[in-house]
Amino acid sequence: MKPSVRYKLNLAYCGANYFGWQVQVAGATWKGARPKTGKLRTVQGVLTEHIGRIVGHPVTVVGSSRTDTGVHAKGQVAHFDTTSVHIPPEGLRRAVNNRLPDDVVINTIVEVPSPNPDTHRGGFDAIGDAVHKRYQYLIWHSLNRNVLMEHLAFHRWHDVDVDAMAAGAAHLVGTMDYTSFCRPGHGRESTVRTISDCSVSQRGKLIVVSVAGNGFLWNQVRIIVGTLVEVGIGRFKSDDIRHMLDARDRRAAGSTAPSHGLYLQWIQHRLNRGRGEPV
Amino acid sequence: MKPSVRYKLNLAYCGANYFGWQVQVAGATWKGARPKTGKLRTVQGVLTEHIGRIVGHPVTVVGSSRTDTGVHAKGQVAHFDTTSVHIPPEGLRRAVNNRLPDDVVINTIVEVPSPNPDTHRGGFDAIGDAVHKRYQYLIWHSLNRNVLMEHLAFHRWHDVDVDAMAAGAAHLVGTMDYTSFCRPGHGRESTVRTISDCSVSQRGKLIVVSVAGNGFLWNQVRIIVGTLVEVGIGRFKSDDIRHMLDARDRRAAGSTAPSHGLYLQWIQHRLNRGRGEPV
Repeated sequence: MKPSVRYKLNLAYCGANYFGWQVQVAGATWKGARPKTGKLRTVQGVLTEHIGRIVGHPVTVVGSSRTDTGVHAKGQVAHFDTTSVHIPPEGLRRAVNNRLPDDVVINTIVEVPSPNPDTHRGGFDAIGDAVHKRYQYLIWHSLNRNVLMEHLAFHRWHDVDVDAMAAGAAHLVGTMDYTSFCRPGHGRESTVRTISDCSVSQRGKLIVVSVAGNGFLWNQVRIIVGTLVEVGIGRFKSDDIRHMLDARDRRAAGSTAPSHGLYLQWIQHRLNRGRGEPV
Repeated sequence: MKPSVRYKLNLAYCGANYFGWQVQVAGATWKGARPKTGKLRTVQGVLTEHIGRIVGHPVTVVGSSRTDTGVHAKGQVAHFDTTSVHIPPEGLRRAVNNRLPDDVVINTIVEVPSPNPDTHRGGFDAIGDAVHKRYQYLIWHSLNRNVLMEHLAFHRWHDVDVDAMAAGAAHLVGTMDYTSFCRPGHGRESTVRTISDCSVSQRGKLIVVSVAGNGFLWNQVRIIVGTLVEVGIGRFKSDDIRHMLDARDRRAAGSTAPSHGLYLQWIQHRLNRGRGEPV
């Protein structure tokens, strides 16, 4: 058996033309806005195709975060295994980038520890080793549309009280049950997560909501942003966020902000583990 | 004859999906990268169509700057005449914006003086009354592509000396013959223009070239930027700009930067003139 090498990728993409990260089967039962038939272009699919061609064998590209349709990434992390050890990482990066469409780019490729070939344990894992993630959400706050950021920011024209949004955001920081801020049907065992930062700032006509934590539930950031916007326009008070959390019911929180304003900023992983040595 | 009202528009558009501002005939002799046949989507064409439908008669939308294919505008100015005086400007603006594609938006509509109906002289004129324009050019300066600004900034990965670019830019300020920085075939009588500001600044990984003046020749800003980038990467020295200007020959200057980094920022017009009263 050929020795296998595991590579860690850091990549960016514009989500506008993708049905999210994960390879999907058309017409499957998974809920989401997408056609019933036809080829679904996904970021994972595009990467799998082009990396596979260059290393000369089929690969599985495992992404740290399964971003939804339309969501962008500045620092998605993924890993894959290859037996083509003759390609140095930087050469591989350039070769894949040359073939990738304009809206996906691999910023770094580094070799990371592989799992133990006998036990299949240990080694770097893009999903399992993620310990901290940051998302950003952009709101274009102006009477007029921003024609240059049409698919890059959520347009709101109401009067928005950014201070009230920030006060509401502060209630979301902590280790809590975020059931009210999670789309049902997520399939996760626990809805308890830790949010280490949830802040709102204004940069000219852009309102930026920044959320960091140890992991996020399905649509969690988008429901947080949708609810904070409703706080900003006075539909809710900042302190209502606390009652929403207590309710542990999705219907208690506000609306889900659209996907096109959401950016996966970065993902931190625990230090690379040695082969088969759990940390 | 119905009384005619002239409206001044301030509008923004993303040029990525347009063959520039001006309505063109497919296969015509005008030089430019565009198909030989088929419908050419232009900003002027889209505005003419939708404004005409709403005012209920054909209109001619006259734009202040004929931006080229791919060039963006944050503050293009245009005018048109209508005999439908029953539509207030703000209602007209909303009605047209509702129909316009996502990548074009009218930010303001105001009534301006019409020409004298007998002499056809005087009144506000988007072209003739423009006295000052500013363009900006965005360069994404990084080893890696910016997938979110692929059609919004020119990507350069070389080492760039921004100070050298700024020093070169300073030579371009003044009232001069800009023949060397103008694409031949422009059809203008004089190649003398006044550039009041030409500056280069860095904002993170973006290099911004900002140029203001009383009017610009064909491709002038793009040739200025292309040349300044070549100064930045050391192909020319800053002081070479002076010799290029003296040569009065397009071949003396550097390359033409691509259109997708260029933004028409704003246009100043002389104060609205009364009917038939030249200023």
